[in-house]
Amino acid sequence: MTVYHAPIRDMSFVLYELIGAERMEKLPGNEETTRDLVEAILEEAAKFCGEVLLPINASGDHEGCKLENGVVRTPKGFKEAYDQFAEGGWTALGGNPEFGGQGLPHMVSTLVEEMICSTNLSFGMYPGLTHGAVRAIEAFGSDAQKRTYLPNMISGVWSGTMNLTEPQCGTDLGLIRTKAVPQDDGSYKISGTKIYISAGEHDLTDNIIHLVLARTPDAPAGIKGISLFIVPKFLVNEDGGLGNRNGVQVGSIEDKMGIKASSTCVMNYEEAEGYLIGDLHRGMRAMFMMMNAARFGVGMQGLGIAEASYQNAVAFTKDRLQGRSLSGAKYPDKPADPIIVHPDVRRTLMTMRAYTEGMRALSAWVAEGLDIAEKSPDPAERQEADDLVALLTPIVKAFMTDQGFELANHCVQLHGGHGFIKDYGVEQYVRDSRITLLYEGTNGIQALDLVGRKMGQNMGRLLRRFFHPVSQFIEENQEDMALAPYVMPLAKAFGRLQRATAHLAQQGLKDPEEAAAAATEYLRLFSLVTLAFMWAKTAKIALEKQDGDDTGFYKGKLTTATFYMERILPQASALFAQIMAGKETMMSFAEDEF
Amino acid sequence: MTVYHAPIRDMSFVLYELIGAERMEKLPGNEETTRDLVEAILEEAAKFCGEVLLPINASGDHEGCKLENGVVRTPKGFKEAYDQFAEGGWTALGGNPEFGGQGLPHMVSTLVEEMICSTNLSFGMYPGLTHGAVRAIEAFGSDAQKRTYLPNMISGVWSGTMNLTEPQCGTDLGLIRTKAVPQDDGSYKISGTKIYISAGEHDLTDNIIHLVLARTPDAPAGIKGISLFIVPKFLVNEDGGLGNRNGVQVGSIEDKMGIKASSTCVMNYEEAEGYLIGDLHRGMRAMFMMMNAARFGVGMQGLGIAEASYQNAVAFTKDRLQGRSLSGAKYPDKPADPIIVHPDVRRTLMTMRAYTEGMRALSAWVAEGLDIAEKSPDPAERQEADDLVALLTPIVKAFMTDQGFELANHCVQLHGGHGFIKDYGVEQYVRDSRITLLYEGTNGIQALDLVGRKMGQNMGRLLRRFFHPVSQFIEENQEDMALAPYVMPLAKAFGRLQRATAHLAQQGLKDPEEAAAAATEYLRLFSLVTLAFMWAKTAKIALEKQDGDDTGFYKGKLTTATFYMERILPQASALFAQIMAGKETMMSFAEDEF
Repeated sequence: MTVYHAPIRDMSFVLYELIGAERMEKLPGNEETTRDLVEAILEEAAKFCGEVLLPINASGDHEGCKLENGVVRTPKGFKEAYDQFAEGGWTALGGNPEFGGQGLPHMVSTLVEEMICSTNLSFGMYPGLTHGAVRAIEAFGSDAQKRTYLPNMISGVWSGTMNLTEPQCGTDLGLIRTKAVPQDDGSYKISGTKIYISAGEHDLTDNIIHLVLARTPDAPAGIKGISLFIVPKFLVNEDGGLGNRNGVQVGSIEDKMGIKASSTCVMNYEEAEGYLIGDLHRGMRAMFMMMNAARFGVGMQGLGIAEASYQNAVAFTKDRLQGRSLSGAKYPDKPADPIIVHPDVRRTLMTMRAYTEGMRALSAWVAEGLDIAEKSPDPAERQEADDLVALLTPIVKAFMTDQGFELANHCVQLHGGHGFIKDYGVEQYVRDSRITLLYEGTNGIQALDLVGRKMGQNMGRLLRRFFHPVSQFIEENQEDMALAPYVMPLAKAFGRLQRATAHLAQQGLKDPEEAAAAATEYLRLFSLVTLAFMWAKTAKIALEKQDGDDTGFYKGKLTTATFYMERILPQASALFAQIMAGKETMMSFAEDEF
Repeated sequence: MTVYHAPIRDMSFVLYELIGAERMEKLPGNEETTRDLVEAILEEAAKFCGEVLLPINASGDHEGCKLENGVVRTPKGFKEAYDQFAEGGWTALGGNPEFGGQGLPHMVSTLVEEMICSTNLSFGMYPGLTHGAVRAIEAFGSDAQKRTYLPNMISGVWSGTMNLTEPQCGTDLGLIRTKAVPQDDGSYKISGTKIYISAGEHDLTDNIIHLVLARTPDAPAGIKGISLFIVPKFLVNEDGGLGNRNGVQVGSIEDKMGIKASSTCVMNYEEAEGYLIGDLHRGMRAMFMMMNAARFGVGMQGLGIAEASYQNAVAFTKDRLQGRSLSGAKYPDKPADPIIVHPDVRRTLMTMRAYTEGMRALSAWVAEGLDIAEKSPDPAERQEADDLVALLTPIVKAFMTDQGFELANHCVQLHGGHGFIKDYGVEQYVRDSRITLLYEGTNGIQALDLVGRKMGQNMGRLLRRFFHPVSQFIEENQEDMALAPYVMPLAKAFGRLQRATAHLAQQGLKDPEEAAAAATEYLRLFSLVTLAFMWAKTAKIALEKQDGDDTGFYKGKLTTATFYMERILPQASALFAQIMAGKETMMSFAEDEF
């Protein structure tokens, strides 16, 4: 019952007007990524997502995954959809051309990811996890490992997983117990239990390549003793064909609140053959790389759900007739007006729109950073881009998933009682998106990453990658009266962010708990300023173009930018006060007083 | 896997220290409601809820209701639990003694309702709906109708329902199509379809008494032509025994996001025998009375879920070991510290605590108002109390359910990935509580009720019932330096509420859309001030008693009050700015530009 139309006009706007794809197009390897090509890809992706993935979203939720005799069966239609997906080249979109990938920039592949997440979050998990594993093998694997695994993973014939969590450890990976015992031939025997392994077992691909964190017998305690291993479900013969079944089995699959068509597995490793990837005891480094890519991907899930929620809320509120407009009947010939005439309904829709479009702009900016960090010939430029990505990754992950979930709830809310009924399909957005606030590091952990790690890193160098362009934009535009309604609120909120940053940096040096106590509110404040920057830049472009060809589009951008400044950004003042309040009220209780 | 311990200490605090039950005890009929009796009832209720309702909460969710051959089967254990519930006298708690009820005041029965909602929201729906129907029959039924229906409904042998919604109308009841054709014997033949009827059909009671909104053939159009009818599932013989099966059948039951053990029915009326209750064409009046009681009850559902969420979050965060305290290991002998040592975890717990205890205080205040409005011999006092209840009902409904849902999400969030897995039981709180924001008028409708109806009613008379005591409290305590950390923030936020009220009242006169555009934010601001008032009053008591017997309890109240003022109430400033921004940004789009 849900609808979806890929927001290609807005995608083009962020790509070719707001962020500007000129830099991306000039990067080595991107020479052929022309606007025509990109728009053709987006059109094709929109078609695939709307025609193949959307129709199996609700049925996939209803049916869920089934574990039968050690085999996980994905819901009806998933295997066929996946085959089409792989055959269509969608698994290879961003892959390295050396191993059969299409080498498209992140700025483009990210938009396709958004569409997949809007139409079928569960489905997107399978290629998404593979994508993370591919990146880790590419970055840390030996040449032989790359040749053995990457072509089939990029083509989608095989899939990949990340195996971190164990029953006793999620966030604190230092507690990992899975063992890796070295063998004479240089391989390892892996034994242990991993939980919450997405795509750990399924029927979509011929082989599954597990990346597994484990501890060698004489490794140092804690996270410094952890190494990363490749453990294929089927061993790979010299000729590249599939060999023996390895000692890894799915123990059970989880009964979850949502993403029911994504299999979440308990994986049992019993002397499974594994191969060290990267350096011994440096597994966390490789894992962090996968995690950062994964965190950006999870942020995109938030955006995908946000967009789907907005579209379905609009469709329903135009259709549902209840009551009359307070300013007089708008459709006197109908028994009632559609509820979109009501201010409170529109307030909700505008909130959804302002967040969604703002987040799309933000994610495009970060995707540009990913492209530059990977492909720029200039090391300084690479470093700068990498800094920005590192800084904004926890924001993309936490803020965009918080909002994805919140907007899914707005969509349900605008449906009234219908929102609670499965037939209407929108309660699934709430259930599916709930996991995005939890996995790949809970959003609280993202906030601690921002405050405890990214903020102080290299004497605040990462922060400057964001603070400088914002300062510069404000300085350049503060005299422009037409832009004042956008630049002034941005400047005010930005000032609060700067003061909060200075305060926490100083407090945190004396007492890290002071910074940690404000981490979540600080991440939210930072995020709101980030979106305010995106909206102010958008407004500048829209003011210039509003009298041109696509006047409705640009006027809409201006109204939405104003809405953001007036109705959303004021939260910054409250957050600032909360941040400055200190840790005392939350730390003064003894444990047993809770 | 979930835990629950009834918060009897805090319940006693709000009842006997904060709100003060003295007035309640002096009301006619409450003479025997002594503190000893009340505390004994609360202990018994806690036992029943913990031992009977909690164990069938998760299984009830898992199994759900089943429709088989026109009969709805509730999940395993529900019938037995319901029988125990009725035999224990719990259905009769607040019922009129004239018809077999125990006549306990709302201040007491409300706390029992909270416990039921904490342990089994679905179960609570069945007696909850009956309760609403009983109130309507008591208020508007003839003596004969009261004698026929009330005793069996109050004893729980029969249950009741409210039938408002139809496929084409939820909020806009003027669109109702169900017909009521008068018969020669004074009865009516009712025909039509009602949807989303909670407890419309089930196997818990011998009979189900439906209250149905319908339209007589020559009734005026719109809500002024709607009348209310009693339609029993089984007709009742002269002798009070059950007669023929009436023409009302369940058509289907809904597959929902949550409260799966509560049957939500499509009800088909085909020339069912019905009896007018109250005056012809005055059905909305009776329905509003049921709705107001129901809205208060739904607010209590929010509180119940909030309390359960807090308790389970505390239990999990004390148990789960991950990482080390930033101020040095707290449990060096364990592999890691429990996550409750972390400031961000405690910030979340304190947020949950501050809202939950604040909402309990608020609901007790409103319950006191319900008791006075019902039983006071002084008409002026009755009117005053009724005004306060009318004013605060949309706040109790919308704010307490918003927070119930938000706190359920906090509970899930503190569980990390486990929160998403059904085995842990807490994702059910999210799904179950989601409906509370929707039914009995969406929370947006509550906001419109507050701004569009309650605010201006009788020249602001309702508002004064809240504004006066708050002003008075601030005036009386503003010189007290020890209370300043509580009274000052209250005074500041209250000032904003007063200004926002004046602004919206003025704007609303010129253009109702201006008031409607700010309704949701205004309700939130109002709610935060209401809780700030509760917390300031609490702090005053706690300051006086903190050096006495129960020092930990009162010091905890002071810390939580400070947390509320520092970390939650600052939202008032943002809300004020949003309220003042006006309707332009949300109303300027044409419909097709969304």
